[in-house]
Amino acid sequence: MAKPTADGMIAEPETSSRRASGRAEAPAVPIGPDELIDAYRRVRGVTELLCEPLGTEDYVIQTMPDVSPTKWHLAHTTWFFEQFILQDHSPGRYEPVNSLYDYLFNSYYNAVGPRHCRPRRGLISRPTVQEVLEYRRIVDDRIGRLLQCPDGAILETIAPLITLGIQHEQQHQELMITDIKHVFSSNPLLPAYREHEPDCGETAVVPLSMDWVDVPEGVYEIGTNAPKNGRPFAYDNETPRHRVFLEAFRLATCLVRNAEFLQFIQDGGYQRPEHWLSFGWATVTAEKCQCPLYWFREGGDAGPWLQYTLAGAREIDPGEPVCHLSYFEADAFARWAGARLPTEAEWEVAASAEPLVGHFADSLIFHPRQVSHANPGKLKQIFGDVWEWTSSSYEAYPGFEPPPGAVGEYNAKFMCNQYVLRGGSCATPVGHVRRTYRNFFPPDARWQFSGIRLAKDA
Amino acid sequence: MAKPTADGMIAEPETSSRRASGRAEAPAVPIGPDELIDAYRRVRGVTELLCEPLGTEDYVIQTMPDVSPTKWHLAHTTWFFEQFILQDHSPGRYEPVNSLYDYLFNSYYNAVGPRHCRPRRGLISRPTVQEVLEYRRIVDDRIGRLLQCPDGAILETIAPLITLGIQHEQQHQELMITDIKHVFSSNPLLPAYREHEPDCGETAVVPLSMDWVDVPEGVYEIGTNAPKNGRPFAYDNETPRHRVFLEAFRLATCLVRNAEFLQFIQDGGYQRPEHWLSFGWATVTAEKCQCPLYWFREGGDAGPWLQYTLAGAREIDPGEPVCHLSYFEADAFARWAGARLPTEAEWEVAASAEPLVGHFADSLIFHPRQVSHANPGKLKQIFGDVWEWTSSSYEAYPGFEPPPGAVGEYNAKFMCNQYVLRGGSCATPVGHVRRTYRNFFPPDARWQFSGIRLAKDA
Amino acid sequence: MAKPTADGMIAEPETSSRRASGRAEAPAVPIGPDELIDAYRRVRGVTELLCEPLGTEDYVIQTMPDVSPTKWHLAHTTWFFEQFILQDHSPGRYEPVNSLYDYLFNSYYNAVGPRHCRPRRGLISRPTVQEVLEYRRIVDDRIGRLLQCPDGAILETIAPLITLGIQHEQQHQELMITDIKHVFSSNPLLPAYREHEPDCGETAVVPLSMDWVDVPEGVYEIGTNAPKNGRPFAYDNETPRHRVFLEAFRLATCLVRNAEFLQFIQDGGYQRPEHWLSFGWATVTAEKCQCPLYWFREGGDAGPWLQYTLAGAREIDPGEPVCHLSYFEADAFARWAGARLPTEAEWEVAASAEPLVGHFADSLIFHPRQVSHANPGKLKQIFGDVWEWTSSSYEAYPGFEPPPGAVGEYNAKFMCNQYVLRGGSCATPVGHVRRTYRNFFPPDARWQFSGIRLAKDA
Amino acid sequence: MAKPTADGMIAEPETSSRRASGRAEAPAVPIGPDELIDAYRRVRGVTELLCEPLGTEDYVIQTMPDVSPTKWHLAHTTWFFEQFILQDHSPGRYEPVNSLYDYLFNSYYNAVGPRHCRPRRGLISRPTVQEVLEYRRIVDDRIGRLLQCPDGAILETIAPLITLGIQHEQQHQELMITDIKHVFSSNPLLPAYREHEPDCGETAVVPLSMDWVDVPEGVYEIGTNAPKNGRPFAYDNETPRHRVFLEAFRLATCLVRNAEFLQFIQDGGYQRPEHWLSFGWATVTAEKCQCPLYWFREGGDAGPWLQYTLAGAREIDPGEPVCHLSYFEADAFARWAGARLPTEAEWEVAASAEPLVGHFADSLIFHPRQVSHANPGKLKQIFGDVWEWTSSSYEAYPGFEPPPGAVGEYNAKFMCNQYVLRGGSCATPVGHVRRTYRNFFPPDARWQFSGIRLAKDA
Repeated sequence: MAKPTADGMIAEPETSSRRASGRAEAPAVPIGPDELIDAYRRVRGVTELLCEPLGTEDYVIQTMPDVSPTKWHLAHTTWFFEQFILQDHSPGRYEPVNSLYDYLFNSYYNAVGPRHCRPRRGLISRPTVQEVLEYRRIVDDRIGRLLQCPDGAILETIAPLITLGIQHEQQHQELMITDIKHVFSSNPLLPAYREHEPDCGETAVVPLSMDWVDVPEGVYEIGTNAPKNGRPFAYDNETPRHRVFLEAFRLATCLVRNAEFLQFIQDGGYQRPEHWLSFGWATVTAEKCQCPLYWFREGGDAGPWLQYTLAGAREIDPGEPVCHLSYFEADAFARWAGARLPTEAEWEVAASAEPLVGHFADSLIFHPRQVSHANPGKLKQIFGDVWEWTSSSYEAYPGFEPPPGAVGEYNAKFMCNQYVLRGGSCATPVGHVRRTYRNFFPPDARWQFSGIRLAKDA
Repeated sequence: MAKPTADGMIAEPETSSRRASGRAEAPAVPIGPDELIDAYRRVRGVTELLCEPLGTEDYVIQTMPDVSPTKWHLAHTTWFFEQFILQDHSPGRYEPVNSLYDYLFNSYYNAVGPRHCRPRRGLISRPTVQEVLEYRRIVDDRIGRLLQCPDGAILETIAPLITLGIQHEQQHQELMITDIKHVFSSNPLLPAYREHEPDCGETAVVPLSMDWVDVPEGVYEIGTNAPKNGRPFAYDNETPRHRVFLEAFRLATCLVRNAEFLQFIQDGGYQRPEHWLSFGWATVTAEKCQCPLYWFREGGDAGPWLQYTLAGAREIDPGEPVCHLSYFEADAFARWAGARLPTEAEWEVAASAEPLVGHFADSLIFHPRQVSHANPGKLKQIFGDVWEWTSSSYEAYPGFEPPPGAVGEYNAKFMCNQYVLRGGSCATPVGHVRRTYRNFFPPDARWQFSGIRLAKDA
Repeated sequence: MAKPTADGMIAEPETSSRRASGRAEAPAVPIGPDELIDAYRRVRGVTELLCEPLGTEDYVIQTMPDVSPTKWHLAHTTWFFEQFILQDHSPGRYEPVNSLYDYLFNSYYNAVGPRHCRPRRGLISRPTVQEVLEYRRIVDDRIGRLLQCPDGAILETIAPLITLGIQHEQQHQELMITDIKHVFSSNPLLPAYREHEPDCGETAVVPLSMDWVDVPEGVYEIGTNAPKNGRPFAYDNETPRHRVFLEAFRLATCLVRNAEFLQFIQDGGYQRPEHWLSFGWATVTAEKCQCPLYWFREGGDAGPWLQYTLAGAREIDPGEPVCHLSYFEADAFARWAGARLPTEAEWEVAASAEPLVGHFADSLIFHPRQVSHANPGKLKQIFGDVWEWTSSSYEAYPGFEPPPGAVGEYNAKFMCNQYVLRGGSCATPVGHVRRTYRNFFPPDARWQFSGIRLAKDA
Repeated sequence: MAKPTADGMIAEPETSSRRASGRAEAPAVPIGPDELIDAYRRVRGVTELLCEPLGTEDYVIQTMPDVSPTKWHLAHTTWFFEQFILQDHSPGRYEPVNSLYDYLFNSYYNAVGPRHCRPRRGLISRPTVQEVLEYRRIVDDRIGRLLQCPDGAILETIAPLITLGIQHEQQHQELMITDIKHVFSSNPLLPAYREHEPDCGETAVVPLSMDWVDVPEGVYEIGTNAPKNGRPFAYDNETPRHRVFLEAFRLATCLVRNAEFLQFIQDGGYQRPEHWLSFGWATVTAEKCQCPLYWFREGGDAGPWLQYTLAGAREIDPGEPVCHLSYFEADAFARWAGARLPTEAEWEVAASAEPLVGHFADSLIFHPRQVSHANPGKLKQIFGDVWEWTSSSYEAYPGFEPPPGAVGEYNAKFMCNQYVLRGGSCATPVGHVRRTYRNFFPPDARWQFSGIRLAKDA
C-alpha cells in the first residue's frame, strides 16, 4: 500500500510579509478542471488511507460529544460535496444518494435543514462502513463527471466550492486523527493506531534557556484578502487584510516542553488557584484535572508519568513539546512561568517571514517531535508539531463579511467563547495551514494537539 | 444454517399446583455431564444464531444506559462461565483468556472486583466482534474439557453453576433482542432486524368483552423451594415456597390490546393526571410521553399510528396486545379502565394450573400475537407474548436467603424500586420461564415487551 | 410562654387487637361543632407556637427540594382549609383571601389547578411572614363563623374534612421541625432552634443484648376500616382492615442505638458493597455518604463524632437510638447485623397490643431519648422517638379505594418507590400516630427522624 | 427621608481625549483622611438607603446563581473593608467581628481562604438582617477610628484600598438593584420595589432615522494609566493607556429602542438561526427565549407585551431603550439590522469627548429614559440608561499587570468568555462610571440593564 506523502496533499503556496508591507499576491490564475479533479482525488484518497489501520468497530464509536465517529467523518465530508456542489449546481433535478443522509450527515448548517443531534452520532450503526464507502464512490463519480465537461460559467462557480470542500476534508482528516486517539485512549486495552519509533536524538534533555525574538512596536498588517478565482485559498475568517498596532513584544523561539510542564506540575501548578483564570480553576477543580490529557501515572500517585500516544502508551519524553493542553492550562503555565501567551496578531507578525515548513501529518507519526535547540535567536517549529494557543478570543476582523448562503455558516457563527490557535500540528495535513490560518477551540478543549509558545512584553 | 426451534432450547419441566397444595416435586435426579454439555452447547448456539442478521457495526452501539451492545452480551455471558466455573473450579491456577476481560465484562458483581462503567459499554470498539467470538470459542472448549472428565465432587459443585450460566445466557438472549430493537429504532433509517409476516387472522377487531376468571379467598402457596442437585432449576428469588392470604379477586382472561389502549390515548389518558401515580405523571410530563415506546404518527399529529417492530415500521394492529409500556402506563390504563393490576401472588395462583405453553422466542417473530378470543372464561396467553406488569414491588419472599458469594448478587441486591412482571414474552427463550418466575424492572422501563393483564376485587 | 402539652393536641383513641380478632370499634359518635372548633384552634395554635424560636429570615429558606420554608407550611396548611372547606362549602360565592394563593400554596393537588414548582418555594419573599399570619387569622375567623351556625347537613360533610385538615396540619408540624433542622444544619453557624438538656440517665452504655419478642405464624388482620361520621380518624391508606398470612417471626424489643451503628461504621459498613442494595450502594457512593445525616467529625477523619441536633451540635450519645437514616442505611445495617427489617404487617401485628404512649413532640425536645433496657422481653419505644423503617413498599391494601375528588390525591398517588415507616417520632404531635398509621418516604430520604428496629425469621 | 442625589455619591473627575493625544492628567493630590471618611460614609449610607423599600424576607432570597441576597451584599461589602483594611492594616492583632464571616462573605478571593459556595448564598438565614446591620456598624466604627489618627505611612497604603472598597461598594449597589429586580420578578405576585411615574414626554414614537457619527481611521489611545496616590481612581483592568489602530467606523447616535426590537421579534428574529451566533442559538433554543428578560405577554401569545419594572408590571413603552438583553440578543439584533456592535476601542474613542453626564441611579428610577431624538449627528445617552454591549471579549490590555496579593483577583482572573459593556446604566451610582470603565459579563447574562448601540464599517 502506498503511503501518503507531502506531495500526496495539496500544497498551498502562500506568502505574507511583515510590517505593513502589503501582501505579495500570488497570481490569481483560474484553477482548471484537471488540476481540480486531481486535487480532489488526492485528498479523498488520503482520507481513506488514514482509515487503513481501523477495524470496522472502530469507525462507529463516539467517546464524547466533541468526538465524531470515523464513519461520520467519511460520510459528512462526502455530504459536503453532494450538498454544496452536486445538489446546488447539477443541471436538472438532483437525485440524492439517500434522502436521509442530509439529516444524518449535515454537521451544523441551519440553512440546509434539520439534522441529527451531534452527541448522538455514535448511536447510528447504519449506514455501515461499506455503505458509507459506497456513498463516497458514488459522489466521487458524480463530481468527476461534473468536472469532465463543465461549461466555463459553472466551473467558475464550483471551483471555489470544490476547493472549499477539499480544505474542509483536510480539516476532517485532522479531526479523524484526534478523534480516534480519544476513542482508543478511552479503551482500557489502550490499542495502538499505528506503531512508530519515538524520537531518539536528544534523550539527554538540556535545560531550555529561554530564548526570545524581539519585535518592535508599530502598525502591522495581518490577515489576507479574499481569494480571486478561488486562489490562493483562504478561509473567510482570515479576511480582510487589515492594520493593527502592536506594542513591542518578545516571542519564545521554542515550544514549551514536557520537562518544563512537569516542573509546573511538581510545583503544585494544578493546586494553586493564583495561576489560573477563574473559569479555568473551576474547570480543573470540577474535572479533577491534574495533568495534560492522555497523561497518567503507572501504579498510582508515585509511579512514572506515561502518556497514551497513537503508537500506544509509553513514558513521557521530557524533550518533546507538551501537548493536549486546554487554553486554561496554557494560560496558567504562562503565568507560572512569568510570561504570557502571544496574541494572534503578535504570532502572525512574528511568523510572517518564516518558511511554511514543519512536521505535519504526512509523516504519519501523529506525535510532535522533540523541541529543537538549534539556531539560537531564531523561531523554530512555528509550523506543525502542535497548535499554539494565543490569548486572542476568536473574533471577526475589521471589515469581515461572511459569504452569503449556507457556506457563510462555515466560520462566522462560532465567533464567541473560543480562542485562536496558530501554526498547525503533527496531525494537520501538509499544505493545509497558512501564516494567516486561524484555528479556534473553546478554552477547555484538550483533545487537539495543542501546546504553548510563550510571549512577553518587551 | 439450521434455525433454532423450540427444541433448540432447554425446556425446563416445571409444575406448580394451586391452593396450598404443596409442590409436586420433580424428582431431583442429578444432571449428568453429557446432558449438561449438550444443554450448554445448544444455548450457546442460539445466542450466536440471534446475531446472524447483524452487521459488525450493529454489535457496538449502546443507545441508552439500559441497553448493552450485542458484543458486550456475547462477551459477558462468556465471562460468566469463565469467572464462576473456570476461574473458581479449574484444577490448578487458571490462566484467563485476557486479564482485562474481568474488568470489561463483569456486569455488577462487586465481589469479583471493579468493572467498566455501565453507560460506557458502547464506547469500546475493542475487542472486536471476531475477538469476542474467539473468546467464546476458547471458553466453550475449556468448559467442554472440564466436563469431559470431571470427578464427581466437582460435577456436583459446577453442575448448578453451569445451569445458572445457561439460564443467565437465556436472559441475555432476551435482552439482546430488546436492546437491538432499541438500537435500530434509534436510527432514522429504521432498519429491520428480520422480516416476518404480521398476523392476519383477525383483522376485523371485535370489541373485547371483558371476560374474567374468579379466584376465591384463601391461604395459597406460591414460590418454590430451592432446587436439590440443581434441578428443577429456579432462581433464588423464587424461593422459598410460602403461604399468602388472598382476598377473592378476578383476573382478565385476555391481555389488553392496542385497540383499548388507543381509546385510552384518545380519551386524553396521557393528559389527565388523575389516572397517574405522582411519579408516573412526573415521568410522562418530563419525557413528553404520549404513547407506548416505538409508536409514532406518520406525518404529524393527525397521521395514522405506526409502530417500529423488529420487522420494520408498520401500522398499529388493533388486535395485538399493547406492549412496550412502563409500569406507570400499565397502572394508569388500569385505573382509567376501572380495574387494577394484579399482585404477583394473584397472578401466580391464577396461573398455577395453566399449561406452560405460549408464543416464545423460538418463533423468531419477536412480536406478540393477536389477542385470543377463543374459550371464554379461560385464561389465555398467560405465558409468552408480553410480560405482564404486576402491582407488586420486587421484594424478598419470607424466609428468602441469597446464596453465599458473588452469585448471591444475582438477584437479591435489586430488591428496591422495581416491580415484578410475570409470564414471559415473545422474546423469552422457550423453556426459560416458569409459573414462579419473577422478572423485574424499574417502573419507568419500557424497552422490554411489557403489557397489561387487568385484575379486579371480586 | 405557654408550652404545648399532650392535651394541647388531639388525642385520637384507637385500638387494634391482634390475630384476626376483628376490630374493636370505637363508637362512631358524630363530632359536634364545639368539639371541632376547639380541636381546630388547639392545633392551629401549636403550629404557631412551634415558630416562636424563629427569626423572620428563618421562615423563608429552602435548603433542598424536599424541604419547604416554614412560611410555606404556615400558608399551605391554611390554604388546605380555605380550599377544601371554605371554597367548596361556603354558602354563596366564596371570595378568596388572595386569588394567587391557590397557585402559591397548593402542594400537589392536580384537581385544584396549576401550582408553584416545589423546588422554588424558597424563592418567594412575599407574602411576608406577617401577611401569612394575617392569612391564617382570616381563614381561622371564617372557619369559626362557618362552625358557629352550621346546618346539620353541612356539618356532616365538613366535619370529616376539618378533621382531615387538622391531621394534615399535624403532619406539617412534624415537617416544620424536620425542615428547620435541615435549614439550620446547612448554615456554617449551626444555630440552635431551642436549647434543651441531653439525656443523662444512662451515660455508661451497656452492651445491648439483642432481645426479641416472638410472634407465631397465622392469619392476622391489619389496617382499619374507613371511619364512620369521621371518627375514629384514619387516613384512607390505612383502609380497609384485611387479612394477611404471616410466617413466624421475631421482633427486636429495642431500637438500634448509636453505639451499634458506630460499630457498623468502624467495621467498614459504608465501604463494603455486600451489605447494600444495589441502588443504595449507588446512592451512598454518589453522595459520598459515610455516616447518618447530621453526623460529622470535628477536626477531620480522626476527630470525635458529633451530631447536629435542634439544640445545637454535640457529641454522639452512644445510648440514643440512631436516627436520620435512609432506608438503604437501615437495610444495610440489618444485613450486617445478621437480621432484617420487619414488614409493616409484622410490625403492626407485634404492636397491636402495645399502649399508644411514647416520646412525642409535646416534650419540645425534638430528639430521641436513650434506648430503654428495662423489662426484657417486652417491646419498648414502639411509639415515638424515631420512625421505624419497614421492608414494605408503600402499596394499596387489598380493597383500597381512594375517596373521590381532590382529597383522593392525599395518599394514593404516592404508592410507588416509597417505603413504609411506623410508630411516629420525637417530632410527631402526640395523638397523631396510630398502630395502623402508615408513614412513607423514598428510600433515600434521611431528614426525617427515622431509625431501625430489627426483625428475624423465627 | 432624605433622597440620595448626585452629590451624595463620589464624583470622579475624569478626562480622556481623542486621537493619540496623551492623557490630560488630573493632578494627583493625595486624598486626605477627612475627605476619605466622608466619601466612605456617604457611600455606606447610600447602600442602606437602597434597602429601605425591602421587607426582612426580601433580603434573604437568591433566585438564580448569579443573584446574591441583599443581606449578602450588605455583609460582603463590609467584609471587604474588614478583610483588606482592618485585618491587613490594623496595628496589633485584629479581632474579627465573627470568625466565620470570612467564610460566609468572601466572594471569590482564593488568596484569603475557602468560602461558602456561591449558589448557596440564599440558604443562609443567619446572621439575620439586624445582625448584618450591626456588623456594618462595627466595621464603620473601626474604619472611622482607624482614619481618625492615621500615621501618614498607613494612610498612603490604606487610602487606595478604602477608595477601592468604596468603588466596590458602588458596584454592589448596582447589583443589589438588578438582583432585587430578579427576585421580585420571580414572584407571581410581582411586587414593586418603588413606585415611579413612567416617562411621558414622547408618547408618540417617531420612526428612528438611523443617525450616525463618523470616526476616521487612525492610531488612538485608550485606557488609562494606573492612579498615583490613589487618584483619579481607575480599576486595574483599565490600565495601561495604550495605542490601538482603528479602521474608520460609524457609531449610532442613539440607543436601540423597544420599537425596533419589537420589529425584530415580529420579523421572527428569535426563530431564524441565521441571525445568531451558534452558541447564542443553542442558548435561546434551550431556554425557549422569545423576548428580552422581564418581558411577557398578558393573556397568552396574542396579548399585549408587558414588562416587569422595579415599579411593577406595565406595558412596553416603544420609545424607551430596549434593555435586559444578552450579548447574543444584542449581536443577533445588530446582524438583523445590517449593522454590528462596536468594539470597546471604537466606543471609547467615540465617547472620549462626551461629557460624563447621564441618567444614573441617583434618580432612584432604576429604569432607562426614552431615547432622545434631539441634536441630530451628536451622540446621546452615551452614559447612563443602559450598559452598551461591545463586540470585544474582555481581555488584558497590552502591558496590563494585576496588583500583587488578593486584590489582584479583583478583575484579572475573569478575563475569559466575557464581553465588555460600556457607559453605565440607570442603576449605576452617579460618579462611578468613566469613559475608560470596562464592565463585563458572560454573553448569556441578561439581568443587568444591558442594551444596544449599533456600529458600522465606514
